[in-house]
Formats: sequence, C-alpha cells, structure tokens
Amino acid sequence: MQSTDEIINKAVQAKHAVALASSSKRNAALIAIADELIEQRHSILKANEEDIANAKGTISDVMIDRLRLTEDRINGMANGIREVAELPDPVNVLLKRTFRPNGLEIDKVTAPMGVIAIIYESRPNVTSDSAALSIKAGSACILRSGKEAWKSSAAIVKAMKHGLEIADIPTDAINLIEDTSRQSANELMKAHGRIDLLIPRGGAGLIRACVENATVPCIETGTGICHIYVDKEADIGKALSIVRNAKTSRPSVCNACETCLVHKDIADQFLPLLKKEIPEVELRLDKRAAEIIEGTPAGEKDFYTEYLDYILAVGIVDSAEDAISFIEKHSTHHSESIVTENKDTADLFLQTIDSAAVYWNASTRFTDGGEFGLGCEMGISTQKLHARGPMGLQELCTYKYIIKGNGHIR
Amino acid sequence: MQSTDEIINKAVQAKHAVALASSSKRNAALIAIADELIEQRHSILKANEEDIANAKGTISDVMIDRLRLTEDRINGMANGIREVAELPDPVNVLLKRTFRPNGLEIDKVTAPMGVIAIIYESRPNVTSDSAALSIKAGSACILRSGKEAWKSSAAIVKAMKHGLEIADIPTDAINLIEDTSRQSANELMKAHGRIDLLIPRGGAGLIRACVENATVPCIETGTGICHIYVDKEADIGKALSIVRNAKTSRPSVCNACETCLVHKDIADQFLPLLKKEIPEVELRLDKRAAEIIEGTPAGEKDFYTEYLDYILAVGIVDSAEDAISFIEKHSTHHSESIVTENKDTADLFLQTIDSAAVYWNASTRFTDGGEFGLGCEMGISTQKLHARGPMGLQELCTYKYIIKGNGHIR
Repeated sequence: MQSTDEIINKAVQAKHAVALASSSKRNAALIAIADELIEQRHSILKANEEDIANAKGTISDVMIDRLRLTEDRINGMANGIREVAELPDPVNVLLKRTFRPNGLEIDKVTAPMGVIAIIYESRPNVTSDSAALSIKAGSACILRSGKEAWKSSAAIVKAMKHGLEIADIPTDAINLIEDTSRQSANELMKAHGRIDLLIPRGGAGLIRACVENATVPCIETGTGICHIYVDKEADIGKALSIVRNAKTSRPSVCNACETCLVHKDIADQFLPLLKKEIPEVELRLDKRAAEIIEGTPAGEKDFYTEYLDYILAVGIVDSAEDAISFIEKHSTHHSESIVTENKDTADLFLQTIDSAAVYWNASTRFTDGGEFGLGCEMGISTQKLHARGPMGLQELCTYKYIIKGNGHIR
Repeated sequence: MQSTDEIINKAVQAKHAVALASSSKRNAALIAIADELIEQRHSILKANEEDIANAKGTISDVMIDRLRLTEDRINGMANGIREVAELPDPVNVLLKRTFRPNGLEIDKVTAPMGVIAIIYESRPNVTSDSAALSIKAGSACILRSGKEAWKSSAAIVKAMKHGLEIADIPTDAINLIEDTSRQSANELMKAHGRIDLLIPRGGAGLIRACVENATVPCIETGTGICHIYVDKEADIGKALSIVRNAKTSRPSVCNACETCLVHKDIADQFLPLLKKEIPEVELRLDKRAAEIIEGTPAGEKDFYTEYLDYILAVGIVDSAEDAISFIEKHSTHHSESIVTENKDTADLFLQTIDSAAVYWNASTRFTDGGEFGLGCEMGISTQKLHARGPMGLQELCTYKYIIKGNGHIR
C-alpha cells in the first residue's frame, strides 16, 4: 500500500504538468478519460459488485443504492466528463488589465490552485466528477473515497489514469488515497503548503472535523437547514406548491427544505392546507402551530436538525423581521426562501438574510450548479470565503497578478 | 474588563446594522470618524506617550518608531479614512445577472462578510485603517491590537466610536479586544460561526498560530521571501537597479527582496557589479557565488529566511527552469521577479511561478494595494483561497445569490 504522504508527493510533483498543459490537451485528456470509463466498464462494474457485496448489512439500503453502478450510470459519468470538456477553460482568463501611470502593466489572471484534495463518501460518480473538474481547472487532485466505495473508485481511477496517459499528462495528476482509515483524512487536512485546497463532501461530522483540524485551506460544503418563510401576504397556492417541492421532490439533498415558518396572520388558513398538501410528511410543530393542526410537538432541537427525510419543522412567527431573526439563529446559511406578493417585504428578506442563496417565490431546490447555469459543481459552499453556493470551475481556480515593466523601480 | 466573548457578541449584534446601512451612511460615518481622530488628537497622543514610556527598553527602536504617533501621523490616518470614504461602495455590486430558460432571475451580488477580526501588532494606524475598511465593506470589526500599542488603540477606537455615533451606526460596529494576552487571540481564532473572517497581520509566528489553530476562515498575510532571478539574457543595468530597489528601498517590508538568483553564464559579470551596487548589504553566498565574489557563506537556512534587513541571499542557477524549481521550493509565494530581455523565458517564468505577484523587469516592491491601483489594502495575502496579493475592499466582501421567481418549483 502506498502511504498517504507518498501520494501527496506524487500529486505535488504532477501539478506543474497539469497547470502548464494547454486547454486542448486538458480537454483531450477528459475525452480520453470518458472513453476509458466506457472501455473499462466491465471491470468497474465487477469492482462495484464486490463493494456492494461487502457493504450489504453494514450500510442502509439508501446508501447501497448510492453506491451501486450500472452501465447507465457509467454512461452518465462519461457524458458528464464530456460536458466538462466542452465548458470554457477557467484557467488563464484575464480578469482585469490595468496600466498604471508609471507604465507598469498589471494583469489579474485566473490560475490553477495546484493540488486539490476531495474527501467524500460512497458515491462512485463523485470520483470521476471531482477528477474531471480538477483536471479542467488545471490542478492535480487527490481523491479520498469512502471505504465502502473504494474498489469501485480504484477501478474508476485506473481507467482515468489510462486516459491521462493517452493524452500525455502524468498519471499522478489523479490520485486515489489507498488508506481509507481516518488517519489518511487527517493527513490530508494537515498537509499545509502541499495541498492547496481541501473540499470535504459529506455529512456534518466530516465538515466539522475539517473545520476543527484542517491547516489546509478548506471549503465547507453541503449542510443545509433550509427555511421557507410564508409571509402574511403570500399567495397560498404558490406557498403550498413551493413547500411541497422543496420538501418532497428529493428530501435527501442539501437544498431540500427542513423548516417552514408561517406568519401568524395567515397560519389558521395556511397550516390545514399544508397538512393536506404533504400528507406523507411528518410535521414537527411549535406550540402555536400545534394549536392549529395536529402533528408531532417540536423540541428546540428539531429546528437545528437537517432531517434529509420526510419530516418538516413548522413554526409560527409574528413578522417578517421575526422570521429573519429566527433564520439567522437556526440556518446553516445554505438556501432560504420567502413567499410573499409584497416587494418591500421580499427586499428586506433578500437583503438581510445572510445565506448563499436567497429566494423570492421559488423553491430552495434550485441551489445547484446546473440550475444556476454554471454547468457542473463540486458541492455547495456554505461558507463566505472564496466560494459561496454552487462551486463551479471558476471557484476551483485562484488568480495571480502578472506585472510587466521595463526596469521599473519604486 | 470586558471579556473577549462579550465583545464578539457585541460585534455579532451590530453586524446587521452595518450591513443594512446605506452607502452614504457608511461614508458619513467614515468622515465623522476622520473628524473625531483630529478632534481627539490630544488624548490619542497622550495615550501614545504612555504606551511609548511603557514599551521603552522592552522593544527595539524600530518598533518604538512604528508605535509612535505625531500630529502628522494622525492627520495621515484621518486622510487615509477620507480616501476610503471616496472609494466606490464594494457592497451590493451586481457581479452577474442570469435569466434562466425557466424564467428564474439569478443575481450574483457582493455582500458584507459580517464580522471581521484583525489581529495585529503595534502600529496604531492599523487600528484606524482596518476599522475604516471594515465599515466601508459593510462589516462590523473586532480589533486585537498588540499590547504595546493598546492605550493608543483604545484612544483611537474611542474617537472612532464617537464618529459612528454621530452617523447613527451602532458603536459596537468597531470593537477593541481588552485582553491582550494570547488567550484572546485564541478565542478569536476559535469563534467559528460568529466571526466570518480572521486576518492576522503580523509576523510568521502569528500566521502559523492562525493556520494551526483557527477554526474561523482565515487569510494568511504577509510573509515574503521574495526572489529576483537575473537571467543570462538580462539587461545588467536594469538588473542592478531592480535588485538595489527591491532590497534596499525599505528592507523591513514583506515585498522586499530576500534572495537573488543569477544565471551561471552571467554570474562572473553580474556579481562583482552587484557587490558594488549595494555595498551596505551583507551578501550570503552559495558555494558557486562565493567563488566569484567575497561575502558570508550561506547555509541552507539562509534561503528560507525572511531577513527584513540589509542582508541578501545570493545563489547561482544553471537555467531559468532551475531558478523556477528553486523558487518553488523556497518561496512564500508572495512576489518574484525575472530580469530578462527574452520574452519566451519571461513567459515561462510568469506562467509557471505560483506566487501572488510575478514580475518581468520590475521590482517586487510594487506589490501593494496603492501601487496596484486598488486604493488601500488590508495586508497582502499569500494564500490562494479567496484573496491573493493585496487585499482591497473587494476582498473584504463575500457574495450571495438572489433568485427571483414567480412560484417556481423544480
């Protein structure tokens, strides 16, 4: 087994070759990688079967489904990579050119990060998506897959490395960590000066561990306690359809709604309709909501929980300002929405709420790279530094200043 | 004494009022702050005299000079704040507007960070600069001054709070930490979820402590082991003048040059001239350079040292590629320069060197917010996340997505 330290070194060695590879060379590598995934699909599926056989009984059926690959899913992965190849090159983009009075020319241009590490769980497609985005962004990558998906990931990485070889990019540009214990995740978090960016894609525990332990710059992703506030001037029809969509269209994702706040003036009318609208959802009600409809009494903890399930916390507020304060206190700053026909109330909400995405009369489910027109994403950032919301190719790059003079001194 | 925890809470309470204050209100506050600094100059100078009396004998003369305030310096601080007031508002700037095929309008707009904490040492002007930039950027700030400058900082903050009051912005928008022990710095580093951005402005020790301990998102600033590479095709006159400027115009700053690398083909000619050009500088020479001129033999450690003094490490390399590898290994990724008349060699250097600012035929001393035309700066970032190089107002903001629909569901 290669040590994590050796693998980090290999990525560091390879980063210049990726950074200096032309746009067409990086794209050729992506096409070759997509082809190789198809070419090697049988061995990928075989590895995946082994993963599933080992995982059965140890993880939930939902997790098994996330882990499972099929020919269709592999085609989907390959097509995703081909789409990335077609996106504009995010590297070497001139952001700003300044000519100073002294004659210096100062260019601010996008530049590759260098080495990007991604720690994730058991969805094998994250392996190919993350690697493709990194290569497109001119960076080498280090992938640390969850152990349940390790054999699948290893088979995918083998195919991808072959694709790199065909395009004459060092195979060390894509690396899979071999040690799947916590130790390797810790080593990645501590590789300050060697890894340039660490992206944890996983549950709250992983994110917390990164925040607490990482010395490498890190982007928090994903945890979403998303709120919908139904204002007293809401269109009830829109409100019902937005809450239903945000809660039930895909409850397991981070942009699903977890809490619905209702203005007191509209609660008597709205709550019974809500109960009818989403009968499959367990409602956890604060005291005032429980006086209007039946449901589970909510504890304070319920409003701090990312259910990722058919459960919705419901509370009543006295005003839009109260809704804003409540959200400020309980939100993970991912996505929040206001349903109202009053533009001033909407503006107050949109301006004041400090979250990555703030909606007016729309479902929180739209917080997604594809839906935003960014093409694809490497998770949803819930932090304010560098990247906020869907992280596309641009957010996987840094920039630098290139200054041209003619013997200039200060 | 107020506890650090209480002070953090006050800043968190005040952040919305700053974020929601109009551009003209924030600018009015800055003007009032500048006026109050002048108005209260006598008490500020008196506090400063006490600081200096206490510090004498405990810190170097250079540090005493940095600590010292005069009427002129206070005027300079006030003028600096007035200049900040005149800059364009960095908040609520529309970065991108997208209309999606489904009719959603997605705006990407700049937004305040919230609470910015700055840990610094003993230059009292950093107190007023940092606070002014934070208020302009719509954020509350927490200042943690070095203990030698604490009384001066407290007098400055008192004046600034009065300015805020005049402009009807909560005085808790600017806060000075009262506990000057390490404990308070640690508390700031660990205030995840309450402080949105931590900027350490100080020596390598402080930066390292932040990298290792901070759970709050943090921007590394300042440490500069800057290189100048004199290529075999350099114009010798330009090279001499650039090295002299970068080393001797202000050796104590982070953009001063610490290492000069010389191509072997030009070393016999260049090194004796260099020695004559900067006789006041102690040269620490690698083995090959020591065969050509006299000087102190350099140990390996010399090439990893930020001297901030009249000392220059000098090494000989075989090629531009070797210079690039050497810099990659030893640089803090702040600023590096190549002196050459060959455009291809320059391009290779500019593309490959992974530093915040990369120069062709110019002194590294230009890495500075003012020189880049950014107006003013909150330090120089040497990291790749969020901000790189001089941090202006734009880098003190985040962004958010504001999405407007009409009952849109996914």
